[in-house]
Amino acid sequence: MAIPEHVYDNTRMSEGDPRSIRTMTAVQNAAVQLLETAGWDSVHVKGICQCAGISRSTFYQHFQEPWQPITRHLQEAFAREFPSLLDGTAHLEPEELLLSGKPLSFPLFVHMESCRSIYVPVFADLRGGMIRQHLVEQITQLSRAHHEPLRRISPHRVDADLVARYLAGGLVAAAGWWILQEPRDTPAAMAYWFSRIAAPGLLQTMGLDSLLAE
Amino acid sequence: MAIPEHVYDNTRMSEGDPRSIRTMTAVQNAAVQLLETAGWDSVHVKGICQCAGISRSTFYQHFQEPWQPITRHLQEAFAREFPSLLDGTAHLEPEELLLSGKPLSFPLFVHMESCRSIYVPVFADLRGGMIRQHLVEQITQLSRAHHEPLRRISPHRVDADLVARYLAGGLVAAAGWWILQEPRDTPAAMAYWFSRIAAPGLLQTMGLDSLLAE
Repeated sequence: MAIPEHVYDNTRMSEGDPRSIRTMTAVQNAAVQLLETAGWDSVHVKGICQCAGISRSTFYQHFQEPWQPITRHLQEAFAREFPSLLDGTAHLEPEELLLSGKPLSFPLFVHMESCRSIYVPVFADLRGGMIRQHLVEQITQLSRAHHEPLRRISPHRVDADLVARYLAGGLVAAAGWWILQEPRDTPAAMAYWFSRIAAPGLLQTMGLDSLLAE
Repeated sequence: MAIPEHVYDNTRMSEGDPRSIRTMTAVQNAAVQLLETAGWDSVHVKGICQCAGISRSTFYQHFQEPWQPITRHLQEAFAREFPSLLDGTAHLEPEELLLSGKPLSFPLFVHMESCRSIYVPVFADLRGGMIRQHLVEQITQLSRAHHEPLRRISPHRVDADLVARYLAGGLVAAAGWWILQEPRDTPAAMAYWFSRIAAPGLLQTMGLDSLLAE
């Protein structure tokens, strides 16, 4: 599925401008704080502008919808936590991708645990739906990129987009269940569970059964 | 994850009232027709009311949001196509659930193909996000219910909600990719692919590897 361009284009001003960055940060912090303390009812453009001390037109210079600053905040948090996964410097080995103690799902579960106060309302309420969709898109791209080493050694052609979407959709839905539990398993336990469920069928379909051996 | 009650409670009037049913049908048809012919920009309460020949207050007696009549239309179409899957009269055998020619995903792919003119805009545009989320919720319930025979014979306890959510999230994301392809595989081919990817890890985790033998 082609990702509509506007999905990732939620910044219109130059990102390099320090004043613009300060405003973006203020808007993001305001939206997140409103969600965490007062819930979805308070996450609207008017409330975000009041909380951030900006005008409506300034908001619309940076974002189109009130959920977008929250998505942006989560993206930036993930980028700070796991920069090497996004800048292409992470070198994941095929053997580690799906079945080691640290598959690709592990940093995603860690990130969700660290931002749990945001993810709980995102997953507990239908109004978090757009953020969840956005998350599926982002994880699809991440999964597609990081599973390239598997495709390189696979004797079968399996559509990379289809697999990445399946994994991202399953991961976000499972993570949304997990993050609402109290008490709940650790991120490492969830990553282990996710690999046990997802890896065998995927590796068999790719003709990489040998990676499944202990 | 607890499903917020309002997810399924998008009808407020008595469902038995023939006039109410006629209005509901008119609203649903109007919303679907607008989406199919004019796209998301035209799917708003005002446009739906004009197209259906009803007042805004009548719309709000039945629905809260403009995407809800579309979801309702899709639910009813699925219920007409596969009534036994919803009324509990389908008796699926464990052996057939995940790996036979007709796993549970098969009717879902058939349904999406039959309603493709609606599902294409639902998956091609971020504005279909709420309908996609709703679809994940519905398929989670369906999957949970129909995989009960597997849980009954499983020697391991695997959380039924977690598994159902994972499968539903993966299925909807994969189906969303598939339905936008042109040309694309048949529903039967997709169901086969889905089972090959999803079944091995799931059955192994449930201690039901024996079902995986040819």
